[in-house]
Amino acid sequence: MYNTGEMPAEDSPVAFMDKWRRAAARNGSHLCVGLDPDPAQMPAMEPAAFLRRVIEATSDLVCCYKPNLAFFEALGRDGYRVLADVLAAVPPDIPVLADAKRGDIGHTSTAYARALFDVWGFDAVTVNPWGGADSVQPFLERPERGIFIWCRGSNPGARDFQDLPVLDEGEARPLYEVVALRARAWNRHGNVGLVVGVTYPEDAARLRRLCPELPFLMPGLGAQGGDAAAAVRAVDDGTGGFLVNVSRQVLYAARGPDFAEAARAAARRYRDEINRYRARATGARETT
Amino acid sequence: MYNTGEMPAEDSPVAFMDKWRRAAARNGSHLCVGLDPDPAQMPAMEPAAFLRRVIEATSDLVCCYKPNLAFFEALGRDGYRVLADVLAAVPPDIPVLADAKRGDIGHTSTAYARALFDVWGFDAVTVNPWGGADSVQPFLERPERGIFIWCRGSNPGARDFQDLPVLDEGEARPLYEVVALRARAWNRHGNVGLVVGVTYPEDAARLRRLCPELPFLMPGLGAQGGDAAAAVRAVDDGTGGFLVNVSRQVLYAARGPDFAEAARAAARRYRDEINRYRARATGARETT
Repeated sequence: MYNTGEMPAEDSPVAFMDKWRRAAARNGSHLCVGLDPDPAQMPAMEPAAFLRRVIEATSDLVCCYKPNLAFFEALGRDGYRVLADVLAAVPPDIPVLADAKRGDIGHTSTAYARALFDVWGFDAVTVNPWGGADSVQPFLERPERGIFIWCRGSNPGARDFQDLPVLDEGEARPLYEVVALRARAWNRHGNVGLVVGVTYPEDAARLRRLCPELPFLMPGLGAQGGDAAAAVRAVDDGTGGFLVNVSRQVLYAARGPDFAEAARAAARRYRDEINRYRARATGARETT
Repeated sequence: MYNTGEMPAEDSPVAFMDKWRRAAARNGSHLCVGLDPDPAQMPAMEPAAFLRRVIEATSDLVCCYKPNLAFFEALGRDGYRVLADVLAAVPPDIPVLADAKRGDIGHTSTAYARALFDVWGFDAVTVNPWGGADSVQPFLERPERGIFIWCRGSNPGARDFQDLPVLDEGEARPLYEVVALRARAWNRHGNVGLVVGVTYPEDAARLRRLCPELPFLMPGLGAQGGDAAAAVRAVDDGTGGFLVNVSRQVLYAARGPDFAEAARAAARRYRDEINRYRARATGARETT
């Protein structure tokens, strides 16, 4: 299903948004597990073998996997072989989102979109909006893929530019809100989402009010800290239009021979924790 | 000299800023040639063989080469083999700048910096500042590398966010100026530059006044249009602290068997044209 060779992949018969919602319903899960292979943190084994074991141990507990391309590139030229092996290990009914944060002038973004969607066959990507409309357009033109615009980061530096007060039609609002409004306007094919850090729940709440219909990919739970309860309460619209990502806390839950069982236990714990926050947010029955 | 295997590269004995200025002086050139392998535009030959021929034909006319990683990634898994071959073909005294526009939370940017500097051995990179200080820090920490912050794009969409008026200590100024001021503050090791499009000469002039000491990497000449004369006049400080990039107009100057000669002729024409603008800007004697 994932095309890991040279030829363009067939367009996925199921659009990312459907595939992700079906996986979430099937597994009762809004947990996305980030795949960040870091030899300094993993057991002494081949990175693809390690990630395959983690995927096998968690694929009934997640709604999505999110390989972070930086960690594959940092493995050296072998990193792309590792990525191919990992993609082949993901069950066909779980979508894979490339955390790539790509974005460049239109001509270059077209090449990035080709690499991510046609060469690798990812179901969805994260995109950096700094270059404006033409830098995002080549991604948006793919209705069957999910395009998550990096709107409000989970990191400390997110405040540096994303929070600056911008004059927008005479009113001052934080820049990330301007980006969110633009992303909403870009969503002509129902394929756009936002990256919104778990670490800033009030900002997440404001963004949910501005963009009720966009799914939010929420990093920052686990290693980065963040008040997940408040963030989930803030963004849950009752239909579950969000994915909470956890990477290191699942992958590196244990370093010994029990690493896969530990990853499974951690994934189950995060899945259930998110569902408890949902239950509080919506008054719905707990999903387990 | 470029390490294209798995092992970390030795730190380059010559820092990027020195290497680039020496190449510029030796070749009398502020021309950077972008290496964007696009099978749809190149002669029917293997991409690495094509780029090697272009490099051989132009390396005495340029101050830098700039591979755009998107085009290598779009070649498929073979793209990284092509990149390795291309890096091996660049003479050791010409620096190589990865047009990567990477940037993510600090932990991830550390992995990107490792990939670009230690796995590949690039002398310099372009970086996307959207994630703020901690997203740029892992690059800045490498004093011997050049870090070009994407400040004011050459593309139409650059206006969407980069131009927004931002309230900065009570005064409104365009966001790209805030980024430039931040980049200036980040320049503790003398390794920071700005990406400033040739297409907006007045903005370039304002940025030069704000950041007299930073080198500017200026894309947008050639395929993207742009008033190069005005832009060079605007940024030339008399010491030549700028690189003007041309990609497609050199690489794809001809598609027939004379492609390398045509690339050389185009590179010479651009180099001389930039030097004429310099002469007008500074009243200096034309460099040829």
